[in-house]
Amino acid sequence: MTAKLYCFGESGSSYKAALAMTLAGMEWEPIWVDFFNGEARSPQYLQINEMGEVPVLLDGDTVLSQSAVILDYVSSKTGKLGGKSAAERREILRWMFWDNHKLSTVIGSTRYLMNFLVPEKRPTEVIRFQQGRLKAAYQVLDRHLAKSDWIVGEAVTIADLSCCGYLFYPEPFGFDRADWPHIDRWLDRIAALPGWKHPYDMMPGSPADRT
Amino acid sequence: MTAKLYCFGESGSSYKAALAMTLAGMEWEPIWVDFFNGEARSPQYLQINEMGEVPVLLDGDTVLSQSAVILDYVSSKTGKLGGKSAAERREILRWMFWDNHKLSTVIGSTRYLMNFLVPEKRPTEVIRFQQGRLKAAYQVLDRHLAKSDWIVGEAVTIADLSCCGYLFYPEPFGFDRADWPHIDRWLDRIAALPGWKHPYDMMPGSPADRT
Repeated sequence: MTAKLYCFGESGSSYKAALAMTLAGMEWEPIWVDFFNGEARSPQYLQINEMGEVPVLLDGDTVLSQSAVILDYVSSKTGKLGGKSAAERREILRWMFWDNHKLSTVIGSTRYLMNFLVPEKRPTEVIRFQQGRLKAAYQVLDRHLAKSDWIVGEAVTIADLSCCGYLFYPEPFGFDRADWPHIDRWLDRIAALPGWKHPYDMMPGSPADRT
Repeated sequence: MTAKLYCFGESGSSYKAALAMTLAGMEWEPIWVDFFNGEARSPQYLQINEMGEVPVLLDGDTVLSQSAVILDYVSSKTGKLGGKSAAERREILRWMFWDNHKLSTVIGSTRYLMNFLVPEKRPTEVIRFQQGRLKAAYQVLDRHLAKSDWIVGEAVTIADLSCCGYLFYPEPFGFDRADWPHIDRWLDRIAALPGWKHPYDMMPGSPADRT
């Protein structure tokens, strides 16, 4: 049975799940969520996910939210993209928590403020503050990737797919690949994986559709 | 052998780990990190945790960082504070990711900006923005706790210990228990667990020590 993913093109969290299922060879189809008109906070959607967030995965009787939990599920179900030992699996979880705590959550809101909010409402001080936090996070990731091709072990895992989720988007949020050479080359390695697609080619909806 | 936790009193993330080990009956002792003088970003400390964060747990040969990974380890090792089924364990993970993504990470920096930064440097616009994000998160948690005593299942789990980590601290960060009655009663239930202690009584260091 084909899994269904509630998602929208601009959502880096959804992209993580979509990319993991695609690379692991799982069949899935998107259900577009009209996030920018508030669908994710509607009473109907809160029945699906009380957290009011995308993505949500429906796979048979399984309903999951939080991209990292979906990544963990996809990896367990397919036997792909996971670690090769208990220690590697713990390292993967560690980087996924770091990503949720320090990287993706801050990129998500910074990118929103800088691109999807009407220009006259964009809070300069907040954007500057968040870009400072992001710089510290890029530093941690770049330093780590100086030592190895992939975040954990010798091959791509869901830790890589979690951390890269927002980094392929074209809208500015204070990230220039040229400043972070090890992140830059790692993104090239991910983009070279068979089946890889850009987020706007993998999920419905993009800023271009809305203008 | 007694586990060692790199921590400091003001760290809500450290408190989650300290509280979990205490409630699960694991022996541990603290190693105080002089966070406010930059120890967590020193070359020596980066050897212990390249992410430059506390807590870090040393338990025999195991070295772990990211509070949620430590919580997961404590629960697996002791057989306590975990879910009773695969579905419950997935729910626990879901709430821990939500906490890292939407709750604790935002409280941590808001509380820092409002209390530990010198008054003339406190960025008003950033604090207001983050308090708005926090309000949305409290709403999700309060609504969830209206339906059940604990976040997942019928008893306290590491999901509760993750989400409550910052909520016992006395410094203002835009959270008033009176506004969130279900969170308020849940915090009372946690504080009534045998062995519970306030963060400043459980770990070395507190603002009082520094003034």
